Amino acid sequence: MKLKLTEIPGSIVAPQGFKAAGVFCDIKRLGTGKGSDKGEKRDLALIVSTVPTTVAGMFTTNQTCAAPVKVCLERVRKNRVQTVVVNSGNANACTGQQGLKDAREMVRFTEQALVLPEGSALVGSTGRIGVTMPMANVCAGIAEAAVGLGSTARHADQAAEAIMTSDTRSKQIAVEFKLGGKFIRIGGICKGAGMIQPGMSATGKRLGAMPLHATMLCFITTDAAIEAKALQAALHEAVASSFNRITVDGDMSTNDTVLVLANGLAGNSRITHHASRVTPHAQVFHAALSHVCLGLAQMIVRDGEGVSRFVTVRVNGAKSLEDADAASRAVANSALVKTSWHGGDPNWGRIIAALGYSPASIVEERVDIGYSAPGSRKILWSLKRGQPTSVSFKELCAAVAPREFDLHIRLNLGQGSALMYAADLTEEYVEFNKGDVSDPTSLGG
Amino acid sequence: MKLKLTEIPGSIVAPQGFKAAGVFCDIKRLGTGKGSDKGEKRDLALIVSTVPTTVAGMFTTNQTCAAPVKVCLERVRKNRVQTVVVNSGNANACTGQQGLKDAREMVRFTEQALVLPEGSALVGSTGRIGVTMPMANVCAGIAEAAVGLGSTARHADQAAEAIMTSDTRSKQIAVEFKLGGKFIRIGGICKGAGMIQPGMSATGKRLGAMPLHATMLCFITTDAAIEAKALQAALHEAVASSFNRITVDGDMSTNDTVLVLANGLAGNSRITHHASRVTPHAQVFHAALSHVCLGLAQMIVRDGEGVSRFVTVRVNGAKSLEDADAASRAVANSALVKTSWHGGDPNWGRIIAALGYSPASIVEERVDIGYSAPGSRKILWSLKRGQPTSVSFKELCAAVAPREFDLHIRLNLGQGSALMYAADLTEEYVEFNKGDVSDPTSLGG
Repeated sequence: MKLKLTEIPGSIVAPQGFKAAGVFCDIKRLGTGKGSDKGEKRDLALIVSTVPTTVAGMFTTNQTCAAPVKVCLERVRKNRVQTVVVNSGNANACTGQQGLKDAREMVRFTEQALVLPEGSALVGSTGRIGVTMPMANVCAGIAEAAVGLGSTARHADQAAEAIMTSDTRSKQIAVEFKLGGKFIRIGGICKGAGMIQPGMSATGKRLGAMPLHATMLCFITTDAAIEAKALQAALHEAVASSFNRITVDGDMSTNDTVLVLANGLAGNSRITHHASRVTPHAQVFHAALSHVCLGLAQMIVRDGEGVSRFVTVRVNGAKSLEDADAASRAVANSALVKTSWHGGDPNWGRIIAALGYSPASIVEERVDIGYSAPGSRKILWSLKRGQPTSVSFKELCAAVAPREFDLHIRLNLGQGSALMYAADLTEEYVEFNKGDVSDPTSLGG
Repeated sequence: MKLKLTEIPGSIVAPQGFKAAGVFCDIKRLGTGKGSDKGEKRDLALIVSTVPTTVAGMFTTNQTCAAPVKVCLERVRKNRVQTVVVNSGNANACTGQQGLKDAREMVRFTEQALVLPEGSALVGSTGRIGVTMPMANVCAGIAEAAVGLGSTARHADQAAEAIMTSDTRSKQIAVEFKLGGKFIRIGGICKGAGMIQPGMSATGKRLGAMPLHATMLCFITTDAAIEAKALQAALHEAVASSFNRITVDGDMSTNDTVLVLANGLAGNSRITHHASRVTPHAQVFHAALSHVCLGLAQMIVRDGEGVSRFVTVRVNGAKSLEDADAASRAVANSALVKTSWHGGDPNWGRIIAALGYSPASIVEERVDIGYSAPGSRKILWSLKRGQPTSVSFKELCAAVAPREFDLHIRLNLGQGSALMYAADLTEEYVEFNKGDVSDPTSLGG
């Protein structure tokens, strides 16, 4: 079954039956008086379905996971969800029992404001770690958002803005495709910027040999009719090849969350889950969901803190999948490789050094390193079988000069392949993250 | 047996029977004409003992290890060593068969110049990766150094300068202590700056569960009489608690090398090795060697590229030694923790997030985080059992404002302890390492 996908406007309100709102309720203020004027950046979003949804989620595997993640983990399996409340400015992480109480109060207050049964709301938070939530502001924000819900692109824009922290622009996408004669829509918003190397699982428990490491939050809506298990399976696969393959700075957040809400209003025959095989309809849905997740994940890297280069690190020929993953992450997170990208320096020495200290098996005399335009198969090789090629330094510099390029690494030891969507390391990243201690509101999570 | 140690001048020429030289032979030039004037920074060093020595070494566990490391690994066990030749400006790494040939030519030429038997010379290199050695320059340098050898502090200074790359100052130390009525001296020089998180072993093979990750080079001389096995055992322990506990940027080099040459001229009764117990004399020697290694290792971190803060990360109460090690490295290498140190921001949220994504077991509600002056037991706690203490933000800022401080992390889960000597991440580090592609000689290894 071939997927014909059309990108459409409206992101999370593009699917039938979804509304959104984004408001300013001054969560970031830490008693400094700063940022207390109305008209500042929005910091609280609501996403609501007019009917109950099937829900699936992927969450940070950081052992110090935030209170909103804990509340989602308690609720996500019950599948009676109809709304998500999200705030920026405060991560509600490392806030102890008070934090858990506050996260529960957020969902309870949201349910009341929307006149929904208990268990209908999920919650996400992002911002500074270790500061208790200003609940009076949060509740005022929820009340304001609940009466401001709507289905226009402006409503989606405001919700997408409200979940941003150090992001310089909002991240939105929506697609439409046909399944069994019905039009289905999937929309999403996300935020990222720093503390970005997610390693998410459905349970918050670590996934086997997968190495782990922003807060990134992503909220996806769809009007597809789909069984919970099929939705979770599709999200698991989609996240594995998108959000779990990105890194800005190698730090994994306490709050990483991806949620997808499916309300069935498209009227398609329900997509079902079979343990032994993936149905054609499930395949199509998975492909569409993957497109949405990958699009959003790449927006996070492109808009990472201080980022000036977007590099797709493609490792092939590793001894195993685990080796390919380890090799791609070692290169994507090496401070020296990342600074060389920033400088437009085709320094393969740093790349091969990072490969050499990674847990992956490497044989120096087998390693090929090259560059191409994004997605192109026309590769300019700087190293073949561990030896510099005749390609000139000037040509190699030209290959790594563009804002976006692919780095190809062939280990020539086996069949393992992996890729990482990675960013450079810039003075701006350091400048931004060293913060300003004279102004605690400037200090990110 | 108590160790009374006196620091003395002269570093590598302080022990009896050692001579050194450091010369300029223009290794860094890559056909650019730049740096070709005499009077530039020295780039080739010789260290020579007047009599054959017992030798021990520890080497990078990077799988793409450099040609000079390979040559040392072939020779170090034979223990007929009398000299070490070292160059900066070119790492002779990833240079294939030609590189190995060049490294062998370096030791052969050195032996000839000094009229020593085959097998007497070891070799170390540091600098850019992947460029073949300018052997005519190197041989001219060796010839010049061989006739310029001497035992004054000036000779040691010139050798220490010749091994520097991005170091801003040379790193030297020497100590004297008494053993069985005889005075023994140990002296050392080293270099570091970037690509610094060594994980060295005696064989270049990885050490069990120890995680791995500049080039750092260190050359130690002593006039102690000591058996090869006892020397190797002492060096292994000394490196484990010094060079293998430092990180500047988390990148492990292809060239990391520590060599110690013991010529026995102190006339002490030979220190012996016993598999089942460490003799009192071996204990004293080990303590003195550890002092030398730790002193040099800390100089590397303090002079790391762009470093403005030296932080000793002390993890206690981990479930196991491996957990303590993993936790200390996760914190010491987190881009967000390191930028917060640079900013003087006591951001414990980033620390607990790094602990949470480390492979170490963590229970958020048990974690204590605090600060002290270097080596002090007077700890200012910012977090106790996962909860912020009443210590004010201002007081915490004052604790992390000095150029050097200790970070104390107690996991309260077991008996595992580990520490890391770590550095902050600064704009200067990025600025330096992004290089200048219009000037290839500026591009570090």
